[in-house]
Amino acid sequence: VRAALPALLSLLAACAAAPTRAPTQAEVLAASSASDWRRPDPQSTLYLELSSGRVVIELAPDFAPLAVANILSLARAHYYDGLKVVRVQDNYVVQWGDPDGKRPVPGPERLVPEFTRTAKLPFTRLAGRDAYADVVGHSEGFPVARAGDATWLVHCYGMVGIGRDNDPATGTGTELYAVMGHAPRHLDRNMTLVGRVLQGFEHLTALPRGAGAMGFYTEGAELATIERVRIAADVPVEERSALEVLRTDTATFGALTEARRNRREPFFLRPAGAVDLCNVPLPVRPVP
Amino acid sequence: VRAALPALLSLLAACAAAPTRAPTQAEVLAASSASDWRRPDPQSTLYLELSSGRVVIELAPDFAPLAVANILSLARAHYYDGLKVVRVQDNYVVQWGDPDGKRPVPGPERLVPEFTRTAKLPFTRLAGRDAYADVVGHSEGFPVARAGDATWLVHCYGMVGIGRDNDPATGTGTELYAVMGHAPRHLDRNMTLVGRVLQGFEHLTALPRGAGAMGFYTEGAELATIERVRIAADVPVEERSALEVLRTDTATFGALTEARRNRREPFFLRPAGAVDLCNVPLPVRPVP
Repeated sequence: VRAALPALLSLLAACAAAPTRAPTQAEVLAASSASDWRRPDPQSTLYLELSSGRVVIELAPDFAPLAVANILSLARAHYYDGLKVVRVQDNYVVQWGDPDGKRPVPGPERLVPEFTRTAKLPFTRLAGRDAYADVVGHSEGFPVARAGDATWLVHCYGMVGIGRDNDPATGTGTELYAVMGHAPRHLDRNMTLVGRVLQGFEHLTALPRGAGAMGFYTEGAELATIERVRIAADVPVEERSALEVLRTDTATFGALTEARRNRREPFFLRPAGAVDLCNVPLPVRPVP
Repeated sequence: VRAALPALLSLLAACAAAPTRAPTQAEVLAASSASDWRRPDPQSTLYLELSSGRVVIELAPDFAPLAVANILSLARAHYYDGLKVVRVQDNYVVQWGDPDGKRPVPGPERLVPEFTRTAKLPFTRLAGRDAYADVVGHSEGFPVARAGDATWLVHCYGMVGIGRDNDPATGTGTELYAVMGHAPRHLDRNMTLVGRVLQGFEHLTALPRGAGAMGFYTEGAELATIERVRIAADVPVEERSALEVLRTDTATFGALTEARRNRREPFFLRPAGAVDLCNVPLPVRPVP
């Protein structure tokens, strides 16, 4: 019996090292390594400062280079400072801009729409069906769809885009919106998306809904103020929000997606066996 | 030339009568007839009264008969009156109940979970792909999925369900949640859904997000109060919210879905050609 003990101990160790249950999302993240995470480029990270707190937006210059350049330029010119949240439509979007349209706008009056990209960009495909596109996945941390040579950002919760009139060239970034409802994917390839909210979205999503058509505030309503918008790189390091984002081109991200597809927490009696593009978690954490 | 005029006029009339463009959602609704609409049964309609206004919920007794009966019984016993919104998790759910779990609960301590139904129920199939289920559509005004004999309500924005512990029989309706983010379809067939919000959801969705784990409010937070919950049938007729809901078993609903799948408004440059189950509009209007 005593002779069998080492073998038994080694078997126990093997069991402990290789549990038969697949890991949960929390377990996948806990086991992640430092290289699974990246720090968003401060040159393309925006801080929207409201009295209630900061909204951090990571811009996507590889997907909308002209629009992102113009937004950065508008931010540096302090165009956005003091603008208002003009629209909060439940289950759709929150939008901010100049309610009177009277503020002088630095920069171009028109911008070429950037609805899709044909540049070669990294891509991690998401297995499964998508209602809107044949091929979906992630690129540089953003949810995307693909067809042929074209890649485009899609309208998941928290994605930020450029408001426009019917003429697609009228959106230059003076008015921005963020998706705050079930993904309005019918907007894909109809709008220039420019990034996504990484942190603090609740400062916008918990605002009172606008009483007017399409959630615009009506006259006399108290509008929340975007006190100022700054580029992270222009803010002293000690005042920056030090965040890391899980890379979407890693095995850890694949394992996380799988843990989301088939939830293993005791609460779930029946794992879904599927995950919708806009339900894939894109974790953000403070720099450890 | 004069002889050709009648033919020309008749051609013009034909053009006007049969526009080549498919109708928009607004045009489909404007052309709907009275019989396209139904009035929710006041015996299974709940009013949640908050200081900011009323939230109207249509219950789904055909999908969760035991749960709905118990919720109606709890409402008649005034169990819900004075309960609190205990959880608001951005892009997920708002949940209300007894924060201390100390209020005496009338009725059963356990309920059989009603995650799926095998009863024969009306069904209008939605064409297209769904990430989670092979067959989806609508039944009695609710978004549903199907497999074999089973039908189940799905977690679209505004759907209301029963909170529970890990044990599936622990949810009796004392704590309810409503979906207020991108559809968390991984909860389908893991929760008993009981209905959907028809009106006034903004009284819940615009509440401050909870600062604790999973959006629960932390100690000291000011919690919104559900002042009272009443069944519409128990409220004097003149105090009821007189609402109509578009029937989902009509040609008008089919046309509306198609107008949503391919947006024809001038704003849309590229119709999506698809519509996700939780993006299909389920119109509600005041009784004309």
